[in-house]
Amino acid sequence: MDLTRAHAESLDAADPLAGFRHRFAGDDDLLYLDGNSLGRMPRETPAALARVVEQEWARGLVGSWSSWIGAATRIGDLLAEGVLGARPGEVLVSDSTSVDLYKLLVAAADARPGRDVLVCCADDFPTDRYVVAGVAQARGMTVREVPADVDEGLDPAVLAAALDERVAVVVLSAVAYRSGALADVAAITRTAREAGALVLWDLSHAAGAVPVDLTANGADLAVGCTYKYLNGGPGSPAFLYVRRELQDRLRQPIWGWFGQRDQFAMGPAYDPVPGIERFGVGTPPVVAMTAVEVGARLVAEAGIGALAAKGRALGELTVALADAWLTGCGVTLASPRDPARRGSHVTLAHPQAWQLTQALVDRGVVPDFRTPDRVRLGPAPLYTRFVDVWDAMDRVHEVLATGAHETYPTERSRVT
Amino acid sequence: MDLTRAHAESLDAADPLAGFRHRFAGDDDLLYLDGNSLGRMPRETPAALARVVEQEWARGLVGSWSSWIGAATRIGDLLAEGVLGARPGEVLVSDSTSVDLYKLLVAAADARPGRDVLVCCADDFPTDRYVVAGVAQARGMTVREVPADVDEGLDPAVLAAALDERVAVVVLSAVAYRSGALADVAAITRTAREAGALVLWDLSHAAGAVPVDLTANGADLAVGCTYKYLNGGPGSPAFLYVRRELQDRLRQPIWGWFGQRDQFAMGPAYDPVPGIERFGVGTPPVVAMTAVEVGARLVAEAGIGALAAKGRALGELTVALADAWLTGCGVTLASPRDPARRGSHVTLAHPQAWQLTQALVDRGVVPDFRTPDRVRLGPAPLYTRFVDVWDAMDRVHEVLATGAHETYPTERSRVT
Repeated sequence: MDLTRAHAESLDAADPLAGFRHRFAGDDDLLYLDGNSLGRMPRETPAALARVVEQEWARGLVGSWSSWIGAATRIGDLLAEGVLGARPGEVLVSDSTSVDLYKLLVAAADARPGRDVLVCCADDFPTDRYVVAGVAQARGMTVREVPADVDEGLDPAVLAAALDERVAVVVLSAVAYRSGALADVAAITRTAREAGALVLWDLSHAAGAVPVDLTANGADLAVGCTYKYLNGGPGSPAFLYVRRELQDRLRQPIWGWFGQRDQFAMGPAYDPVPGIERFGVGTPPVVAMTAVEVGARLVAEAGIGALAAKGRALGELTVALADAWLTGCGVTLASPRDPARRGSHVTLAHPQAWQLTQALVDRGVVPDFRTPDRVRLGPAPLYTRFVDVWDAMDRVHEVLATGAHETYPTERSRVT
Repeated sequence: MDLTRAHAESLDAADPLAGFRHRFAGDDDLLYLDGNSLGRMPRETPAALARVVEQEWARGLVGSWSSWIGAATRIGDLLAEGVLGARPGEVLVSDSTSVDLYKLLVAAADARPGRDVLVCCADDFPTDRYVVAGVAQARGMTVREVPADVDEGLDPAVLAAALDERVAVVVLSAVAYRSGALADVAAITRTAREAGALVLWDLSHAAGAVPVDLTANGADLAVGCTYKYLNGGPGSPAFLYVRRELQDRLRQPIWGWFGQRDQFAMGPAYDPVPGIERFGVGTPPVVAMTAVEVGARLVAEAGIGALAAKGRALGELTVALADAWLTGCGVTLASPRDPARRGSHVTLAHPQAWQLTQALVDRGVVPDFRTPDRVRLGPAPLYTRFVDVWDAMDRVHEVLATGAHETYPTERSRVT
């Protein structure tokens, strides 16, 4: 690979998604490689929020519920078609990722009576592991934590060996939060199904970055976050997916009035509405969902295929530069080397990762530190340029080559 | 009582809270009596939202988490001190009312091992009854639904008779959603405690309308909504309250990373942080919480004592006008007559309540229909004038006296 800055510029010149960068706000000089943690703000978002509060809320008042009432499924359908490869009526915007994970996990465990094991991955994101542990404890189930290579991700054979007739549900991330390792959704779903288990996918680091193709891959259940590659804003509401054929056989545990059939009859007994809305609970977060819709539209407009292709190219450039410039500085690749096995972020390991992160922030590069020794670089294909990656890697190299990071405090002194 | 419009004008002229009306946006001619369903928008809200998205999100990006991380407790403390009569560190902004109710109900039931009954009120808001039913079913518990007079609210003696050594938790609304009946929080909490049960209060129709005085009343657990009298916007996040002395003895069931001690260590096992934050779950809804803070500040600035006094006076005027003008038109009062036993809304019953509601909306009055035959009038002391109540009641009278409502479709044809 040609590793000159001029080559990076030529990749930008040929980038069919280059125009999307101008649809996002923010300092153009900042090398923001943390879109996998909090995506940038679409320029359209402030106006959309102003519209929902100043027109719909302030003027329309309760009358606006006639349009708000359908927002969670309308935006869900947008995500289904434009981002997730699901069918209409299979996705709902709702609650937080953790709460949605809980709801679907309990529903799935209930749907597998007689089975007493929940499987998760030992290296999965904390909330996933904790939610699994909490549900297992409450139900007297056992958690089987499958080990994963922290850099390479989960070996499907290791997972397969953990599946037996005791396993009710498997919770896995489609893209691992630390390494960016991409799971084979179709193969794992099939293997689990053969063992009689349901897989509940966490798409937080996948949605908007890679085509998860839920229908084509035969997925049954999924949840995900909208503030990363979907650019919905800090703490924006999550989404959940339930395959159409399963919906009416499942019941989630939090029986709220927004999951009720004929909700405004306010009847005496809970009777969940058919379809995806039965997985709703309380009054939906109208204002926050407005920002999710803006972000989801941008991803859908760009097209998940084009985004994934650019994400892969950005990742390949990142890895090539790390190989060429950083191996002599103590950096090792902490992501799968094969681009077909990665999501959109690339992780580097370095013993002084926390100090390096601080030095980079002071030099206009925003990566994402993961304890104890990882730096995630998350170029977001909607708005990150190839020259941004080149410039960021150049600064990483400069910091490490000059030892500039060594003047920064160690993680022990970190205040979070 | 002097029932002239001039008298209503004189009450407005003497109203110490009159200045707050101008802090809210919206059509000044609209007689909006649905602040108990969705409060009006504070004028400051759009700028606060613009600031959080354009400055904190777009420019600060992930760095803004240093301030966002404390928002759920900071706004919780504002609610504790300014609205709920609780102590710092006892209130958290989090999730939806339904989800918070679920979390605290499971935690409370776990804290009463060996007890297998949950008590709720047969006339309580649907989500409260449904959440209780769901938790009971999942745990093999029994629900004991206490009957309540739909107009007068729950009789404390009826509740006391339902309490015995089998009862783990009682779920009740401090202000009944239909009648506006105000519960005696202190007496009921004491009675339940004597029976060994915990009371989980739903403050949705009380917070911002009446002083709930959680500390003074000895309350253990509560949840509530912020989009009614707290004016946080459609579907804004809820709050939960846990008395300080109970917090570390309780565990909520949804083990998310925002309830974890030393969260960013991302450790292997869930270990809930001490204090109110252990009742958090997923990433908090930063943008939506910003609007909650604006609304809560306004209530705190006005003072809950002054708000409750004005709310009571608005209610007394409403009842007096209903007595004088509407009894001959088939209207009966469907709220407690004693103002000390009401929250801030007054409910009227009429056989054609749905048709009446539609006729009123067409005449610039927004009440709130509750099936099958109720019209709630919810003057909000922060922004509703006495003349608004007078004018609204005048239009109610005009509609009923002329039979104008009879030309509207019946509820059977209602599309929700």
